[in-house]
Amino acid sequence: MRAIAICAMTLVFSATSAFAQSWQPPADNQRCPSKWGAADQRGAANLMNSESVLQAARLIRTGEVIELGHVLSATMPLSAGRRFEIDTKRTTMNPQSNRRGSNEELVIAEIGQVGTQFDGFAHQTIGNSLYNCFKVDEVSSRTGFTKLGIQNVGALVTRGVLIDIAALKGVDMLADNYEITVQDLQQALAKENLTLQAGDAVIIHTGFGKLWEKDNARYSRGNPGIGVAAAEWLARQNPMLVGADTPPVEVNPNPDSQVSLPIHQIMLVVNGIHLLENLKLDELATKRVYAFAFIIEPLKIQGATGSTVAPIAIR
Amino acid sequence: MRAIAICAMTLVFSATSAFAQSWQPPADNQRCPSKWGAADQRGAANLMNSESVLQAARLIRTGEVIELGHVLSATMPLSAGRRFEIDTKRTTMNPQSNRRGSNEELVIAEIGQVGTQFDGFAHQTIGNSLYNCFKVDEVSSRTGFTKLGIQNVGALVTRGVLIDIAALKGVDMLADNYEITVQDLQQALAKENLTLQAGDAVIIHTGFGKLWEKDNARYSRGNPGIGVAAAEWLARQNPMLVGADTPPVEVNPNPDSQVSLPIHQIMLVVNGIHLLENLKLDELATKRVYAFAFIIEPLKIQGATGSTVAPIAIR
Amino acid sequence: MRAIAICAMTLVFSATSAFAQSWQPPADNQRCPSKWGAADQRGAANLMNSESVLQAARLIRTGEVIELGHVLSATMPLSAGRRFEIDTKRTTMNPQSNRRGSNEELVIAEIGQVGTQFDGFAHQTIGNSLYNCFKVDEVSSRTGFTKLGIQNVGALVTRGVLIDIAALKGVDMLADNYEITVQDLQQALAKENLTLQAGDAVIIHTGFGKLWEKDNARYSRGNPGIGVAAAEWLARQNPMLVGADTPPVEVNPNPDSQVSLPIHQIMLVVNGIHLLENLKLDELATKRVYAFAFIIEPLKIQGATGSTVAPIAIR
Amino acid sequence: MRAIAICAMTLVFSATSAFAQSWQPPADNQRCPSKWGAADQRGAANLMNSESVLQAARLIRTGEVIELGHVLSATMPLSAGRRFEIDTKRTTMNPQSNRRGSNEELVIAEIGQVGTQFDGFAHQTIGNSLYNCFKVDEVSSRTGFTKLGIQNVGALVTRGVLIDIAALKGVDMLADNYEITVQDLQQALAKENLTLQAGDAVIIHTGFGKLWEKDNARYSRGNPGIGVAAAEWLARQNPMLVGADTPPVEVNPNPDSQVSLPIHQIMLVVNGIHLLENLKLDELATKRVYAFAFIIEPLKIQGATGSTVAPIAIR
Repeated sequence: MRAIAICAMTLVFSATSAFAQSWQPPADNQRCPSKWGAADQRGAANLMNSESVLQAARLIRTGEVIELGHVLSATMPLSAGRRFEIDTKRTTMNPQSNRRGSNEELVIAEIGQVGTQFDGFAHQTIGNSLYNCFKVDEVSSRTGFTKLGIQNVGALVTRGVLIDIAALKGVDMLADNYEITVQDLQQALAKENLTLQAGDAVIIHTGFGKLWEKDNARYSRGNPGIGVAAAEWLARQNPMLVGADTPPVEVNPNPDSQVSLPIHQIMLVVNGIHLLENLKLDELATKRVYAFAFIIEPLKIQGATGSTVAPIAIR
Repeated sequence: MRAIAICAMTLVFSATSAFAQSWQPPADNQRCPSKWGAADQRGAANLMNSESVLQAARLIRTGEVIELGHVLSATMPLSAGRRFEIDTKRTTMNPQSNRRGSNEELVIAEIGQVGTQFDGFAHQTIGNSLYNCFKVDEVSSRTGFTKLGIQNVGALVTRGVLIDIAALKGVDMLADNYEITVQDLQQALAKENLTLQAGDAVIIHTGFGKLWEKDNARYSRGNPGIGVAAAEWLARQNPMLVGADTPPVEVNPNPDSQVSLPIHQIMLVVNGIHLLENLKLDELATKRVYAFAFIIEPLKIQGATGSTVAPIAIR
Repeated sequence: MRAIAICAMTLVFSATSAFAQSWQPPADNQRCPSKWGAADQRGAANLMNSESVLQAARLIRTGEVIELGHVLSATMPLSAGRRFEIDTKRTTMNPQSNRRGSNEELVIAEIGQVGTQFDGFAHQTIGNSLYNCFKVDEVSSRTGFTKLGIQNVGALVTRGVLIDIAALKGVDMLADNYEITVQDLQQALAKENLTLQAGDAVIIHTGFGKLWEKDNARYSRGNPGIGVAAAEWLARQNPMLVGADTPPVEVNPNPDSQVSLPIHQIMLVVNGIHLLENLKLDELATKRVYAFAFIIEPLKIQGATGSTVAPIAIR
Repeated sequence: MRAIAICAMTLVFSATSAFAQSWQPPADNQRCPSKWGAADQRGAANLMNSESVLQAARLIRTGEVIELGHVLSATMPLSAGRRFEIDTKRTTMNPQSNRRGSNEELVIAEIGQVGTQFDGFAHQTIGNSLYNCFKVDEVSSRTGFTKLGIQNVGALVTRGVLIDIAALKGVDMLADNYEITVQDLQQALAKENLTLQAGDAVIIHTGFGKLWEKDNARYSRGNPGIGVAAAEWLARQNPMLVGADTPPVEVNPNPDSQVSLPIHQIMLVVNGIHLLENLKLDELATKRVYAFAFIIEPLKIQGATGSTVAPIAIR
């Protein structure tokens, strides 16, 4: 008995030490076609339906709206290579007698990937392959993607669940590179008296959003968040989207330096679950609003990889 | 002597009747401070509160979500001097073992003033003066407005009311330059068994949206809509916003060629009521959804004059 | 035996004549390394030296400067997918006592590929391979090319030679799809009493530039120019660049529909000879200036594929 | 009588000592119409003619070309509110048999006001008034200036004169806020055995260009250059343009804190003399090339305030 037990332990150990070091994305034939069919472009947004809407609406009891989006400004933190620029045009004065002047502005931005921001499925790949195994070189053009564009998503109305890991740990803010575990998620949900349901908008509070426009350098350098194990557990709960108050939702950099943002692949590419980044969660967390009507209206940009958004919680 | 006097009177009268044809914007001291106070930047959005939200929520009975926003694409109709450009970036392949590729796009657009679009108060002036008499030359900069920016608005959740003038007239689409009258609005509301309330999102269906991407030239050339009288009546009903399935909500060009888009001034500058343009209303009208929960999440762009949006109706 | 051999020869011949219809780009090992060495990024610009400058300077006899560049404006013809946009900024008035106001404009353009325009070697490929067999996927980034960027070129000062094919044919403008032949080039040069020399800037006048901003649709639809035979003959004369008063210098579309702009590959990729497009040649042609000092100052844009330019001829 | 005269003198003196502290721009009627006529838009560029070209050409003796422009890159120093962005487009592979791939890039920049840069007359104002008293509110539009646009300038070919003040002072680089005096200019010219002539391109070497991309913060913070007295003396010499190896050519900030960049007004607005900024002068200075053929080809951007350039010296 003892020898066997030791042997098993050894096996487990070596498996852990070998495989655990680097998550590997599944092969195309292991993940495609998607469970929503070979032509599907909507992934978990398919969980949006009249029932998810009614369930959300039933959570509206006080009429309080809580904004989850940051202001889009030139001084907000931006990932490398992205910009957010506004250029106010000269006022045009119309010649008619009512002296109507007209103002407008030009905006130059990776508008799909700045600020509080919703990731679509054209955003991330495993090699040349996107969600449902659409191929980048077949569906990309200079002016957008012919498949998986963000315009396919539409507004999402569903139950939102705040999982407050900072509160669970009794801190204002998780440590910069803290990897949220499955147990963390489960304990926080238990504390909040909630169970995840298919179609939920799962929102994770790390407290890191406090750095927004306060310490952009630190906010952008790395952040706490879910790792591979927590992401795979979450994906099995079948949420419509997973969001957080950090740039990438997931822990960054990943504790395993051999992989780059693997939760982006697990959610967007493998499971067709949207990510929602840079959320403003302070009010929600302070008020301990854990279940709420969640409403998000991504811009319907033809062929885009994502959309900046201004989602709300209503209770 | 007498003959001369009569002649003079006639001259005066005809002069008067000539001037009467042109609406004139009120002087600053007639419209400022706004009824919401001299510092107010939110105008009718002040009508948004927990009661308006609960009232809207009570209209959600089937859980059906109807999208009111058009897809943002390079082929949509655009007002002169505006653009909507997407440039897909080259795929970046991260060097790590999980072969994560990353896509994103640059968008160059008057993002506040294209597509289905929500007008803020920095957009329009009477001379140098904005809503609540903020002065353009004091609150404008090269990178946005320091007052009245669209980020002040936040999400709006309220009762939406569709006023279907096309249905009232028994046509698919009103004539290109038809001016909607007060009587039209009142008759359509009566037919729909509805009365306007303060804080409503008033949505006017002209049928003109059918031309979107079908006949952009005609869609952009001129359109039916409310005139001065209907706008002033509507403003007295105290709505949160007024929208339509046309570029400017109002009849364009105005039947009085001496004025340029006067309803823009009446709503945005004089009364602080937002406009919502280029709505997609076919589904709402076909399904005869006249009262509904209306939810709009304008982008929180610091200092901007407006926001492209993807609002929804829920019933 | 003999009959068989003849038969084989016939087969070979017919195969040749079939293939001959479509020019095929040479294999990498037939064109690399370039005659200027395996690391070379300058191609025929290597012909620029103090002797070419002095030779050009000796052609300056009257001090007359003739501009060869069109005005860059929003109404100029543009190839599909390109733009040229100017947005004038609001005037900034400095607060000091000298009341200094400042104006500037934002320009959004494929500035390397619009207007009168100079092509660099990162612009065109044969498959994945650029001039001197640099590989696109090794030298490209989201923000420019790490090899072959236009900043490597520098100003070019050399003898310019106008080859006036329109004059040779006695027409104002060659027919829209006329393919200029080797004989055309030779006859025009003979008529002008000139012989090409290594390092010349060869400028071909078709008359098509008369359509610029007069009939943009026709100007952009297709144009006369050199075909494969003339291009290969020209390349053997060892010019520094080849230009014309058309969008692509070469005949477009190519008479052989199986190939797409092959002269772009022959010049830029195979031979490292720059192209100079959309020249304004009316004045030069009218004044019969056939040999002149040619001076071009491409913008030194790091990593760019080309540069808009305003070259001059001086005589 | 005498008492009165003394009194008047006293008044004049105190007036002088008061005014002397701050240069004041001349009134419109003191500077308009320009000496080149009331409709003139070219200012000192009118000095460009066949004689200036021939004089320049005669200075070409060795055929050596020296580049005076910096590379345009995303890492170069930029004035506040300006940008220089390149976005490389995805490679388009044409479907034909010659496998022609096409690359190009989008550039977003204040292309008239970045890098080595040539100032036109729409760039600067005295109040609402430009060179030759064109009024900003009459000649500006959202898409450029209807008068004084940089497209009016054309290539300039003239004698260039390097005035090496750093060499005169025996330093690599003048002190950060050193104001170059009239005496400095005169002594340096004497040392170089040169006298200024009407139409010269006057190039001032401060050594400050050594900081370019080495210490951008310092380069941008302030710099040595000519002050009001030197500028007015220079203007009287009637040059075509004045350039330097600093961002604004002039000393910045001005020793008199009451005025903001007054030399910009003296040159561009009052005298119609172009400025040429951010020159790369190290090679010219090291080789002691003091008189040379100077050639600059500003982009012909309709209605623009300036142009990035890549000028050359030839000797």
